[in-house]
Amino acid sequence: MRKPALLIIDVQKGLDDPSLGKRNNEYAETNIALLLSEWRNQELAIIHIQHCSIEPNSLLRPELPGNAFKDEAKPLHGEIQFRKSVNSAFVDTELEKYLRENKISSLVIVGLTTDHCVSATTRMASDLGFSVTLINDATAAFERKGYNGILYSAEDIHEINLVSLDGEFCVVRSTEEILREIA
Amino acid sequence: MRKPALLIIDVQKGLDDPSLGKRNNEYAETNIALLLSEWRNQELAIIHIQHCSIEPNSLLRPELPGNAFKDEAKPLHGEIQFRKSVNSAFVDTELEKYLRENKISSLVIVGLTTDHCVSATTRMASDLGFSVTLINDATAAFERKGYNGILYSAEDIHEINLVSLDGEFCVVRSTEEILREIA
Repeated sequence: MRKPALLIIDVQKGLDDPSLGKRNNEYAETNIALLLSEWRNQELAIIHIQHCSIEPNSLLRPELPGNAFKDEAKPLHGEIQFRKSVNSAFVDTELEKYLRENKISSLVIVGLTTDHCVSATTRMASDLGFSVTLINDATAAFERKGYNGILYSAEDIHEINLVSLDGEFCVVRSTEEILREIA
Repeated sequence: MRKPALLIIDVQKGLDDPSLGKRNNEYAETNIALLLSEWRNQELAIIHIQHCSIEPNSLLRPELPGNAFKDEAKPLHGEIQFRKSVNSAFVDTELEKYLRENKISSLVIVGLTTDHCVSATTRMASDLGFSVTLINDATAAFERKGYNGILYSAEDIHEINLVSLDGEFCVVRSTEEILREIA
């Protein structure tokens, strides 16, 4: 069976902005760099997703420095990249077409943020029939103040979003576990 | 501006099965019935989504009694229905085409379950450009045991999933609030 493609979502500098509040998993980018390195070593498929927002106040608008990839997730020349402007990497992009044409049926998903673009992309990947492994320590969430006025911690948001995805849309694994599995 | 369509997701008898564990919002179906009644009174667009699972052990397979709509959400003759087999009501259905052809740009979403089909459909509706209001007391979640072994309450799963959706994919409102808004 063919090994999965690594799908890296929105690991971009704008997401370091302090206005976003507290984040969990400070080592997520280090883990993403480890996974990227292993995928490159084994010459497995790698797909970079870059968020190019069209929202007026977004830190990820294409003309802003925040749009740039973080150093840990910079694509090498020739690696596949898709740009998106909404949460799911499958909406208004050629990602699905690319996966089908290249007979890629399973994905390892990492990136930012767990409850927004990562969850939306994981859900849609699964609904479209792809098999997804989501890496719990190579994704991260920010704290959020709810519509109910309560402040939810980044860790609680991250964990519960993963629990809702696991088993229904993906299997959740750690960086260490997936590195062992694809070795 | 045209009033929103009511999109009712998976309010089906199979989701009453005790094997699913504890649920929150026991009055969600009563609220759905209230909303449905008001949408009918005002002759606004109503769309029923029925999950027709192809999973071997699902309670919502088309040939099982659990596939039937609950009494509170039974479509009337002539009301629009779409059948789906994955979480998002937009995947492998004519829902998007129907909304575009009928120039429906905003949706009020209710149904089951908050963190699976409701979240997946809300996310995709928003990513496709529709404006979504999600009703917090006309949706519900079940408790879940996480991949980490921890049991998360239905209420925590429900609330945090709504917090992750609110502001990014939808606005969260109560049944009372939306009834007032569309009056």
